Amino acid sequence: MKEELIESLGKAKVSQSESERYRHSRDESSHPFIEPDFVVFPENVEDVVKVLRLANEHVVPVTPYGAGSGLEGQAIPINKGISLNFDRMNKVIEFSPEDLMITVEPGITRLQLNEYVNKHGLYFPIDPGADASIGGMVATNASGTTAVRYGSMRDQVLDLEVVLANGTVIHTGSKAKKSSSGYHLNGLITGSEGTLGVITKVTVKLHGIPEKVIAARCTFQTPGECAEAAQVVLASGIQVLRMELVDAESIKQVNEYGNYSFPEEHSLFFEFAGAPNIVEEEATVVEELMKELGCNNWERANSSKERADLWKARHEMAYAFKHIKGKVSTGSDSCVPISKLAEMVVFGRELLEQSGLIGGVFGHVGDGNFHTIAMYDPNDPVEVEKAEYTNEQIAMKAINLGGTCTGEHGVGLGKRKYQVTEHGDALELMKSMKTLMDPKGILNPGKIFY
Amino acid sequence: MKEELIESLGKAKVSQSESERYRHSRDESSHPFIEPDFVVFPENVEDVVKVLRLANEHVVPVTPYGAGSGLEGQAIPINKGISLNFDRMNKVIEFSPEDLMITVEPGITRLQLNEYVNKHGLYFPIDPGADASIGGMVATNASGTTAVRYGSMRDQVLDLEVVLANGTVIHTGSKAKKSSSGYHLNGLITGSEGTLGVITKVTVKLHGIPEKVIAARCTFQTPGECAEAAQVVLASGIQVLRMELVDAESIKQVNEYGNYSFPEEHSLFFEFAGAPNIVEEEATVVEELMKELGCNNWERANSSKERADLWKARHEMAYAFKHIKGKVSTGSDSCVPISKLAEMVVFGRELLEQSGLIGGVFGHVGDGNFHTIAMYDPNDPVEVEKAEYTNEQIAMKAINLGGTCTGEHGVGLGKRKYQVTEHGDALELMKSMKTLMDPKGILNPGKIFY
Ligand SMILES: Cc1cc2nc3c(=O)[nH]c(=O)nc-3n(C[C@H](O)[C@H](O)[C@H](O)COP(=O)(O)OP(=O)(O)OC[C@H]3O[C@@H](n4cnc5c(N)ncnc54)[C@H](O)[C@@H]3O)c2cc1C
Ligand SMILES: Cc1cc2nc3c(=O)[nH]c(=O)nc-3n(C[C@H](O)[C@H](O)[C@H](O)COP(=O)(O)OP(=O)(O)OC[C@H]3O[C@@H](n4cnc5c(N)ncnc54)[C@H](O)[C@@H]3O)c2cc1C
Repeated sequence: MKEELIESLGKAKVSQSESERYRHSRDESSHPFIEPDFVVFPENVEDVVKVLRLANEHVVPVTPYGAGSGLEGQAIPINKGISLNFDRMNKVIEFSPEDLMITVEPGITRLQLNEYVNKHGLYFPIDPGADASIGGMVATNASGTTAVRYGSMRDQVLDLEVVLANGTVIHTGSKAKKSSSGYHLNGLITGSEGTLGVITKVTVKLHGIPEKVIAARCTFQTPGECAEAAQVVLASGIQVLRMELVDAESIKQVNEYGNYSFPEEHSLFFEFAGAPNIVEEEATVVEELMKELGCNNWERANSSKERADLWKARHEMAYAFKHIKGKVSTGSDSCVPISKLAEMVVFGRELLEQSGLIGGVFGHVGDGNFHTIAMYDPNDPVEVEKAEYTNEQIAMKAINLGGTCTGEHGVGLGKRKYQVTEHGDALELMKSMKTLMDPKGILNPGKIFY
Repeated sequence: MKEELIESLGKAKVSQSESERYRHSRDESSHPFIEPDFVVFPENVEDVVKVLRLANEHVVPVTPYGAGSGLEGQAIPINKGISLNFDRMNKVIEFSPEDLMITVEPGITRLQLNEYVNKHGLYFPIDPGADASIGGMVATNASGTTAVRYGSMRDQVLDLEVVLANGTVIHTGSKAKKSSSGYHLNGLITGSEGTLGVITKVTVKLHGIPEKVIAARCTFQTPGECAEAAQVVLASGIQVLRMELVDAESIKQVNEYGNYSFPEEHSLFFEFAGAPNIVEEEATVVEELMKELGCNNWERANSSKERADLWKARHEMAYAFKHIKGKVSTGSDSCVPISKLAEMVVFGRELLEQSGLIGGVFGHVGDGNFHTIAMYDPNDPVEVEKAEYTNEQIAMKAINLGGTCTGEHGVGLGKRKYQVTEHGDALELMKSMKTLMDPKGILNPGKIFY
């Protein structure tokens, strides 16, 4: 295989170095590291076709690798084989500002993309915090803090170029804003975690940068009250740009880690964005609503530095916890109908208390999506079990309430065990689609399904 | 088969009457009528399972039938067999106003659904004009005048209950607002025109009824100017609720048909909706923009009667043309990136002029989606050819410009011939998915693919 890869692609695109294999053995999850046999760096779609043809012929696993920021082990090549790294495919192919649309290679990251389009007054708003690659974000159907307004990646994807397991190159959509033509392959590939095809081009929608942004925060006595307050904001019809719950423990961690001084109470963080007079009005209405509900510490970020700090703190949350020595993190990612959110959040906080583990509750409550993070010592079987138990209880309760075990991080390795419960007989259909599209099982084997 | 259907379902659910067979032989398109052998009226999911099990065993085609308002012959049982009518499955199953969500049976129509939820201050905004069934709207990924703000059905569907060809019942999603769990079956079934499964329950998002609505219209010298003006409105970032192009010929027809007195010029119709001070501001800004571009006849609908008239006229457009004696209608439904719209609209108008057929150009220009309608005498081969030529030129040009042959009506019979050009190698994948999910080809055979 090595000779054939080198012969077909050239030496500069194939690596077996210890450092590259190590780098591609992991992502940001705590799933065990497994090194690929090779790391391949394609430079164009033809390279990807060559790799897949060879891999399909020799039945060698291929696991696409974006920025490695995934939280469910999706990029870990658990059956070894080839890790396909998109660092060198990070160009802008076609930028159409007048259509609010851009076509890029999958390796470009979110921040690179924004740097490119921001100067034209446009932005790509999906924000998972990490500087993920656009390909990885499509593959996991990522979303994050702005989903309450912009939805998830699937809502932004117009067209994908995809190389199938046998090397066939297809397009999954078009550049039209809507279409009723044929089956919706855009949606199918988005969120498929590299198991159905390799994405080599992405066309996404862009949006105008809001003229004015106001950030604010306030605190409540309990995480449940925060969730209920979020529901009131949604019901008001006000289109917040972000609305995040951060519980007291998480605030404490982030204060310590980042030297902030946020009140260490259960908090809601807001961002309003749009035309100046409209956002001003929105912020005022929400302030009144929150005060009626008995919030404390309502505070606006008055300078853009204060605003940046506030969201930097929110984005550092996971790292703040990870900072704790001798512990690793694991988390839940459930998403439920908004009316069930308070119940879920309270349940999550209680489970953490009962477990005795250090942990926090935070999340994108405008979507009914929240995370728990639990810190455990990977060498202490009791702590391992407690952390797993917490995650499991939350995932199962979310599914029972009509929700999902993963609102945005994806299935990867950690959420495979909930797939039968969540999808029932549909899971067999999904598996048969996988077999149809990848009969030899070379595309990121072992992910989503066992 | 008849005995088995009756034995399994009871006599009251199976009809072979001439009138029912005639009613189910057609939709609102001009494709030739073909009568089913039987019409079956399921009353619950178990009935649908029974029908599909029998049909699969005996290899009898099953074509779901919603309200028969389709424009591409999707509901015509071209291979005969069973027409599956959802009139009796039209109940609300679960209404969760606090989650802005409702679960209904597929036979409920758009207006019935709105009657149910409007009194709670909520609405289901997708509006294809016709009083289509929700099941049919999911199956065709319908949209219409409000897509510029709310997208199409696929953007509104949270979960579907679907009976597969072999009688297995699956769920395609969940009640969470977003999810990264498993493959996106919601999106796959939506728009599949009854070819992959039969929808027996639909969970969709609801939205708050806007507090205030303002309607307005203005005219321009050319359809191209209208399209350019629409682009300016989009670029402004103002979230119109509706923005429709209607060309002079269409206005003329609708004036005659409905006894209106709109200026018979190329027109843009607008609707703004939201909080009172915000919509007022929006309408004013758009008025200024349009006047800067040299529009004429800017007029606001001042009473709610005037507003209702304006949109009634827009919705009657197709019927206004159909009114012409001795002629039937056919149309195009292309959707292109917004920067290509003016070119397309001009091209469409020119083709109609060249053909000498009576016809109009109108559409949902905020999405880059527009229709031509051409009236022809079905017994005059020259007119038939001219009408077909017009449709073909428009579909092919739209595809060449990166768009789609069908923005909202679906493929059915009339757009099958463009599928290879539009989807290339992806079409083979779609076909193989069809074969996977319906190996005997009993589900609405002959639609989407030949
Ligand atoms: C601190 C932190 C916070 C986070 N917060 C959020 C959040 O709020 N919301 C959220 O959604 N996510 C969040 N994430 C998770 C992560 O950022 C997303 O999952 C992201 O989409 C992964 O992108 P990546 O480029 O890093 O992909 P990787 O981790 O490299 O890969 C992820 C998956 O995508 C596949 N893939 C990558 N490129 C391609 C391609 N070209 N073709 C096919 N498949 C491909 C891989 O095979 C793998 O299955 C967070 C992560 C961190 C570390
Ligand atoms: C005057 C007029 C204007 C229109 N304007 C628009 C417009 O602006 N935008 C737009 O999108 N459409 C428009 N249409 C087209 C039409 O309203 C839509 O296609 C609508 O979605 C069809 O719904 P229906 O219930 O009438 O379905 P039908 O015509 O009965 O069936 C359509 C398809 O859906 C399938 N189907 C129905 N029920 C089910 C089910 N339960 N499970 C699986 N498959 C099912 C059928 O098999 C068929 O393939 C218009 C039609 C008319 C007559």
